[in-house]
Amino acid sequence: MSFDVSQVKALVFDVFGTVVDWRSSITREVAAVGERIGVRGDWEQFADRWRAGYSEGTRDVREGKRAWMTADEMHRERLDILLSEFGMNGLSEDETDHMNRAWHRLDPWSDAVEGLTRLKSNYVIGTLSNGNIGLLVNMAKHGGLPWDVVLSGQNAGTYKPDPKVYLTAAALLGLEPHEVMMTAAHLGDLHGGAAAGLCTGFIARPDEFGAGSEKAELKADESIDVGASNYIEFAKKMGV
Amino acid sequence: MSFDVSQVKALVFDVFGTVVDWRSSITREVAAVGERIGVRGDWEQFADRWRAGYSEGTRDVREGKRAWMTADEMHRERLDILLSEFGMNGLSEDETDHMNRAWHRLDPWSDAVEGLTRLKSNYVIGTLSNGNIGLLVNMAKHGGLPWDVVLSGQNAGTYKPDPKVYLTAAALLGLEPHEVMMTAAHLGDLHGGAAAGLCTGFIARPDEFGAGSEKAELKADESIDVGASNYIEFAKKMGV
Repeated sequence: MSFDVSQVKALVFDVFGTVVDWRSSITREVAAVGERIGVRGDWEQFADRWRAGYSEGTRDVREGKRAWMTADEMHRERLDILLSEFGMNGLSEDETDHMNRAWHRLDPWSDAVEGLTRLKSNYVIGTLSNGNIGLLVNMAKHGGLPWDVVLSGQNAGTYKPDPKVYLTAAALLGLEPHEVMMTAAHLGDLHGGAAAGLCTGFIARPDEFGAGSEKAELKADESIDVGASNYIEFAKKMGV
Repeated sequence: MSFDVSQVKALVFDVFGTVVDWRSSITREVAAVGERIGVRGDWEQFADRWRAGYSEGTRDVREGKRAWMTADEMHRERLDILLSEFGMNGLSEDETDHMNRAWHRLDPWSDAVEGLTRLKSNYVIGTLSNGNIGLLVNMAKHGGLPWDVVLSGQNAGTYKPDPKVYLTAAALLGLEPHEVMMTAAHLGDLHGGAAAGLCTGFIARPDEFGAGSEKAELKADESIDVGASNYIEFAKKMGV
């Protein structure tokens, strides 16, 4: 039984990992700072632990254990800890702020811009990320991501996979949940979207956590409406 | 004393009247419906009274006299009244809904897309309209408006010129108010932005209310930071 794509009017995308390769970009930026100040370290571990701070922060906000904070604020909180742990001392406030905004400068996966551009010809395409709107706007300028609209957990005051985030996005677009497809490389995000009544699209990103890592999810499960191994295949399955 | 444009990182635009020619578009769509169902009327008056319903609605929400309503909802409320008054009876729900979405299909002024595209090369450009986000996204698809971000009074739960609308937009962009330029053909909107600490840009739209109407504001007053008679002149003054 194949999914009828004609009901879909908008696709909203997870961003970190799904559209952009956060791990390579962050590792490279952190390594460049280390090089400049003469500090050596395991910069992939730095990137993974920085990312973990954000994951833990969004979970704590979602569960009501912490008050609302933006991704920028969570990134900065964890960055200050990591700079100290990795012995990267003496950065100025401007340098630290610039480093924190490495998350605004993540590079897209090589097939993402072409796939999004194809999809944009027939659908409204937008973000639906836990990243804050300013971060997502700057990232789109950096990477040439052709969004029609930038939506975020920030619009709902909480974080995915809280159903409120998906429902707020559909409402802001003036659409019914089933007219919106949540698209991600992460099944948990898609299950959250489906629980809120959205359609679901999976695009595999096997290298998100580094080549060969077992953390990446390689395939859609049977609950997912449309699954693909890359953006071009996904766009074709969506009829564009 | 000339304004230093280098402080500006984002320009947010009023949309109805500033970017799109609502009156011509609405008059044309309403006239087409009248033609189809064999009703004659003063369709410019219909357009003006439809627009007035929205202006009154946003004012009443801002002043706390009415609960939050979107532009789509205000448009529909007034449309139902006008259809009855103009003797345009018998439209189906689908036809009435389509007519209400004429506000999603407004055509841009002839210089707007070129000017916005130039500005986008150096600035974040976005809407800051009292129109709801879904309406603004559909309008951008219709007219090829190259927004980086779609912001609305809807993000603040109230309407311009309430300062909360301007401050919410700056905060969502992660910018200080003085790094954001409110841009409009309407001085009241710009004074609202300035009161919230934003910079201000004026682009004259003398034909908004019909050629020769005295309702249009033709020039910036001395409080405005950058004033221009069209989008191309405005882009040049902004250095692009």
